[in-house]
Amino acid sequence: MQIPYQQLQQFTEDVFLKMGCSPQDAAQAADVLLAADLRGIDSHGVARLIGYVRLWEKKRINTKPNIRIVHESPSTAVVDADEALGLVAAPRAMEIAIQKAASAGTGWVAVRNSNHFGIAGYHAMLALPHDMIGQAMTNASPLVAPTFSAERLLGTNALALAIPAGSEPPFVADFATTTVANGKLEILQRKKETAPTGWIQDQYGQPTQDPTALSQGGALLPLGSERERGSHKGYSLGAWVDIFSGVLSGANYGPWVPPFVSFLAPLDDLPGQGIGHFVGAMRIDAFRPANEFKQHMDQWITRFRTSKTVDGQEKVLIPGDPEREMEATRKETGIPLLEPVVEDLQSLAERFSLSFLG
Amino acid sequence: MQIPYQQLQQFTEDVFLKMGCSPQDAAQAADVLLAADLRGIDSHGVARLIGYVRLWEKKRINTKPNIRIVHESPSTAVVDADEALGLVAAPRAMEIAIQKAASAGTGWVAVRNSNHFGIAGYHAMLALPHDMIGQAMTNASPLVAPTFSAERLLGTNALALAIPAGSEPPFVADFATTTVANGKLEILQRKKETAPTGWIQDQYGQPTQDPTALSQGGALLPLGSERERGSHKGYSLGAWVDIFSGVLSGANYGPWVPPFVSFLAPLDDLPGQGIGHFVGAMRIDAFRPANEFKQHMDQWITRFRTSKTVDGQEKVLIPGDPEREMEATRKETGIPLLEPVVEDLQSLAERFSLSFLG
Repeated sequence: MQIPYQQLQQFTEDVFLKMGCSPQDAAQAADVLLAADLRGIDSHGVARLIGYVRLWEKKRINTKPNIRIVHESPSTAVVDADEALGLVAAPRAMEIAIQKAASAGTGWVAVRNSNHFGIAGYHAMLALPHDMIGQAMTNASPLVAPTFSAERLLGTNALALAIPAGSEPPFVADFATTTVANGKLEILQRKKETAPTGWIQDQYGQPTQDPTALSQGGALLPLGSERERGSHKGYSLGAWVDIFSGVLSGANYGPWVPPFVSFLAPLDDLPGQGIGHFVGAMRIDAFRPANEFKQHMDQWITRFRTSKTVDGQEKVLIPGDPEREMEATRKETGIPLLEPVVEDLQSLAERFSLSFLG
Repeated sequence: MQIPYQQLQQFTEDVFLKMGCSPQDAAQAADVLLAADLRGIDSHGVARLIGYVRLWEKKRINTKPNIRIVHESPSTAVVDADEALGLVAAPRAMEIAIQKAASAGTGWVAVRNSNHFGIAGYHAMLALPHDMIGQAMTNASPLVAPTFSAERLLGTNALALAIPAGSEPPFVADFATTTVANGKLEILQRKKETAPTGWIQDQYGQPTQDPTALSQGGALLPLGSERERGSHKGYSLGAWVDIFSGVLSGANYGPWVPPFVSFLAPLDDLPGQGIGHFVGAMRIDAFRPANEFKQHMDQWITRFRTSKTVDGQEKVLIPGDPEREMEATRKETGIPLLEPVVEDLQSLAERFSLSFLG
């Protein structure tokens, strides 16, 4: 089923309004979720809407939050999100980072007491119109085993970087610090297919290709897959995101990050509050004139994009290319929704006396 | 051959003095090189000393540099290294970053017109005694093919992060953004062994296990190895380091980064000056009280280190553990040097009328 994105965005906004969000927050949260659907990251879009509703029903999301700075310096701040939707807290944190960068050259904001913030790329890209480089990262509930560990201690801990260019589109990298995101495993499970090697291990830490291993105590593998191929580097990256998002902010970290699914309760004796994010903005002209920088970014992008390809590949991609192309397509054709997602959205329509699809 | 590190460090310092470095610069440069040997990163230690000498002979390294800030804001600076040894320029840049962080909360310094800076971890760790988090990255001459490319467009582009803890040792990640560093391939070539899959591709971009492929137009692969295992993420990371080090600073970038080996001349029409670095320091208490942060880091580290291991593995490592253990050992036993490295050092002793090994 394909649905025009504006229609889906309006419905999503209406659901957030019914949850008690302010009109501004509801519009912001819907914008972040739809950005994921438009950019082809279906696992982080409206498919998650029911998850946010269930967390709100369990009183783990506060739709009337008092999001506030609790500590700051000229180039830094820590924000307590007051259990807000991460979809609302992260753009607010990014706004503070951008203000700090305007005066101090760079701005870095750690957020605690938050919830899942959607796609990291959305928040990083907020810096672009200001001629700034944007960064965004978040920790997440544990699904990933560090190198040599049989336990799940890290989330898929996403990392995004957005860099302005001149006449070329911006460079936008946005990725989980694992070999693959969890969404790809779910698709394989649905299709009853096996996973490629290097994606997962079983509950004993042995390699497996069974995509159901994750629900039986197994784990996703860090980027690099195996020690011999540098999995300790992927583990280091995931740890980096976890420590910046969780330890620096006063949020939870490692195995204590609260689960997104409402049927799992957070652990006892939590070391922090909620989940954490870390966002940053760097003013280009705090380093060199922005137009000069952008000309060089154009040269960088052009050189890479026109490089000689491996046989069978059309061109070398710049990070952000596939998502931008998908967005252009889906703005025309609408958002394709899987049947289970449609059912979830219909149940939300019923729950909140809204009309879904007229 | 094992040599006491103090003796090797003194010899290295003497070589830099003979090249015309000031006593302070010679001591600094030797300290960075020996840190690599002590920490077990042999490819980046005294094995490279002759390479620096050859670049100096070609007038591509200036041992009397005027390293200066050419642009700054409260939390940023751009430094022109005046063709200095990166071994000298990077600690100077880190000092500026630490000063900026003391007043603005964070400090970020992009360096242009520099040369190879040794191990990234050394520079990042300079922040630790100040209760700051340190970051350091550098671009390097092209050996790595982006996903889908048959060309070498990126260096092994290292990235380091040092985070203070309390009673635990600090978290120190320091890694190339490729599956493996080039040094490991050189070892395989010497032993006439094949490489594991996922490390290299041949000149057409096809997978190969021949470690000599790199000298025949092949390339190292980004962390992740293949598209299916997330090589586009390793490519994004390498690009990140390249753009921060090269484009933000006004240094060269991508395929234009000048080669470390003196027998290869830089390309024509360079877009920038020398190679580039990017370093940063973040004051912990610009986010939360340092002792509180360190207690949580201790909890993080302890939880990960004591997690259940995969069968056959003794324990889960924290980034920095292997290097710290190696350093303790080598301070006792001395630095093991391969015969070709001893020969290089002996030729330097002759060249500069120095005594190597008494």
